[in-house]
Amino acid sequence: MQHSSKFIEAAVDQMASLSGIGRKTALRLVLELVKRDKERVERFANSFTDLKEHIHFCESCYNLSDEIRCRICTNPNRDQSMICVVEDIRDVMAIESTQHYKGLYHVLGGRISPMDGIGPDDLTFGSLFKRVQAFGEGLELILGLSATMEGDTSAFYIYQNIKDSPTKLSTIARGIGVGTELEYADEVTLGRSIMNRTPFELSLSRP
Amino acid sequence: MQHSSKFIEAAVDQMASLSGIGRKTALRLVLELVKRDKERVERFANSFTDLKEHIHFCESCYNLSDEIRCRICTNPNRDQSMICVVEDIRDVMAIESTQHYKGLYHVLGGRISPMDGIGPDDLTFGSLFKRVQAFGEGLELILGLSATMEGDTSAFYIYQNIKDSPTKLSTIARGIGVGTELEYADEVTLGRSIMNRTPFELSLSRP
Repeated sequence: MQHSSKFIEAAVDQMASLSGIGRKTALRLVLELVKRDKERVERFANSFTDLKEHIHFCESCYNLSDEIRCRICTNPNRDQSMICVVEDIRDVMAIESTQHYKGLYHVLGGRISPMDGIGPDDLTFGSLFKRVQAFGEGLELILGLSATMEGDTSAFYIYQNIKDSPTKLSTIARGIGVGTELEYADEVTLGRSIMNRTPFELSLSRP
Repeated sequence: MQHSSKFIEAAVDQMASLSGIGRKTALRLVLELVKRDKERVERFANSFTDLKEHIHFCESCYNLSDEIRCRICTNPNRDQSMICVVEDIRDVMAIESTQHYKGLYHVLGGRISPMDGIGPDDLTFGSLFKRVQAFGEGLELILGLSATMEGDTSAFYIYQNIKDSPTKLSTIARGIGVGTELEYADEVTLGRSIMNRTPFELSLSRP
């Protein structure tokens, strides 16, 4: 589709450079911006440049942060003896929004995937192992990785590297989602959820 | 969902202010921008401020343009005796991309919709009637409006205002889309397409 203005063309190109936004959607969004007043468009644009200027990865857990260390790592009320290892920043947000976890995090930045050329050195494992070593005894590492081959590989890599340290290693429970009908659950999940069944009394006491 | 950074929060707010973009999608897009290098994010942001700074509505047809009059209106190769009336700038782009139309356009900026409080004075009818009057004899006005009650109201309003002028009024053909199976077409469209049937020879000569 040809546009009557090279500025529209440029804005559509930029919008469509985001994954999941096609050129038709991009055009719709750009025309919406055209209709807004100038101050509002400036606020829109500046929010992205501000973001890039001010945001850091937390030097401890690699979560996104406005400061050198993030709000979670510097919060004295968080349980310092628990580190939940996740792949992505979005996983931190998802777990935080449950309000059921009061420990710290470690964001790997991805998962080991030889097919995509991602090895352990491309992720933040090194810094994770340093954190584990520095803590010493009494640390629990909770693996919140995805239930895929790559997630399992990453989990096994962590296991191999910390199995000699006095760290408790656990993994988030896999099972049938709350509110999901058994007949629609996939076989692997259902199989795991039978194998890893919990005592009934325990399931009652959980939130 | 709580974000670990107020800059993320602000950028997500801005992104989610676009219609059709929810907060989860907005977050995904913002995190994609965070991962890009600074120059690329600046290019992204600047494309929208540039847009707002440089773009005009063409003073003649109300299409978007980099100049006071748009590329189509100023193109001497376009047929000046044909004006296609459309509701939206996107309709111009859609018709342009067919490459079957060589006349001019007039963008109404919407359609008459009393339910939404949009009357004729909120749209560019006045300027359209001035163009029609200024041209005089030999002009063809093609109505490319949507086949809805509002589109029909707008079409009728135009008809009422120019019926005494020596202007030929036509409307784009409604019918079964090319490649569409009859059984899946809605009844109204199918009915109209039978009523407005074209001679077979004519249908062959069309592109």
